[in-house]
Amino acid sequence: MYKNNKKDILLENIVFGRNAVYELLKAHKRTVNKIMISKTARGNTISEIISIAKQKGIAVHSVPPEKLDKFSQQSQGIAAEVSPIVYLDILDLIKKAKQSPKSLLVILDGIEDPHNLGAIIRNCVAFGADGVIIPKWRAVSVNETASKSSAGAIEHIPISKVSNLNQAITLLKDNNFWIAGAENGSQTLGTIDLPFPLAVIIGSEGFGLHDLTKKNCDYLISISQKNTISSLNASCASAVILYELFKIRR
Amino acid sequence: MYKNNKKDILLENIVFGRNAVYELLKAHKRTVNKIMISKTARGNTISEIISIAKQKGIAVHSVPPEKLDKFSQQSQGIAAEVSPIVYLDILDLIKKAKQSPKSLLVILDGIEDPHNLGAIIRNCVAFGADGVIIPKWRAVSVNETASKSSAGAIEHIPISKVSNLNQAITLLKDNNFWIAGAENGSQTLGTIDLPFPLAVIIGSEGFGLHDLTKKNCDYLISISQKNTISSLNASCASAVILYELFKIRR
Repeated sequence: MYKNNKKDILLENIVFGRNAVYELLKAHKRTVNKIMISKTARGNTISEIISIAKQKGIAVHSVPPEKLDKFSQQSQGIAAEVSPIVYLDILDLIKKAKQSPKSLLVILDGIEDPHNLGAIIRNCVAFGADGVIIPKWRAVSVNETASKSSAGAIEHIPISKVSNLNQAITLLKDNNFWIAGAENGSQTLGTIDLPFPLAVIIGSEGFGLHDLTKKNCDYLISISQKNTISSLNASCASAVILYELFKIRR
Repeated sequence: MYKNNKKDILLENIVFGRNAVYELLKAHKRTVNKIMISKTARGNTISEIISIAKQKGIAVHSVPPEKLDKFSQQSQGIAAEVSPIVYLDILDLIKKAKQSPKSLLVILDGIEDPHNLGAIIRNCVAFGADGVIIPKWRAVSVNETASKSSAGAIEHIPISKVSNLNQAITLLKDNNFWIAGAENGSQTLGTIDLPFPLAVIIGSEGFGLHDLTKKNCDYLISISQKNTISSLNASCASAVILYELFKIRR
């Protein structure tokens, strides 16, 4: 998926879309170098973005619409050039998460679709997870598509990128985290009393953990469904799981 | 989105992807004219598809991989040429749904992204909704992307396409259906006793009902979240809503 690494790094520095840029400005997490707005773009969000940018002293460039189309067909007439996502060190993430009364971390095991990654991060923020752990290899990075799909949510949650997911799980266990993996056909959420601090693992397509990852789990959990002819999409599965965990933690 | 209607009609007749073709064959709902499999495609699902196709007397063509790439980059080495999706008449859909003890229909109000449409239909099947109603205009049809994103689920649920969503809602009310619209900031699911038969409306991006649609609702429902800095993606919102309704109906 990432043959052109140079391009990938470049794109990680561009945030597209009205909500995504708006949340970026509100979050104070990344340095925004400049904002490019299409000459033809109008609307309340655009006006508000310009006003916040002025307050913060961020340069706003009015550009021809083609310039933004060159970056992405889904720019919605706006893009921001930012410092790259700052991934938190896994130890710092754990330390930060443990300040929560019922800590919850979300581990993504091999999510390859950036839309799914963005939607899952959005769910993590909506349902109050304390952080996200993603693998460095064989998985998608927080690129511009993921950022846009998250509708700006990635600006509101700490993310760690780790070289080895199973080492990260061991580290979590050393820090008293329980590990629950989402796995079709296992005990359904709601019938099981999950302990905290907890790290929940979402596999690709919702329920597809790697064998070694599965062996490292203290619990395997699934979602009760009427029909199991097909599993849920990864982001939809994470929405239901994080919603149920939010209700427990609340 | 659909400038080239001729192409659109053509694509509605092609189903891509291993799971999608497998579910298509299992569902007995649409006539499969022929199956094209890439010469380089291997795997259990492929073998099983070939074996089912043989039993059913469906022609299987071995084709060069480029032929499938021409249709779609996401074919996974397989495509089936089928009769178009048969949309059910709304009255037939209602009649069929009412045979369920706690009938549940899902109305989609302006979903434009075919991936979202596919994922929502997948949620409808997983959580046992009795049917789906989609508008004819300003919304995406069940095209090949939606079909693939549904991972074959569209073969397992009746779908109606209506010219006027509000007329459809009136018809549902005449047939004793209660109408609940998903709307941010309204009463949260779980605190409200919803009656059946019920039709639930999912707007674009999860919570974005058209004004007239909203006026026609008997209930407005939302999902409790920790943070509301951004709404959930439409398919994730539908997953949580349909999951909660499934638990009530069960």
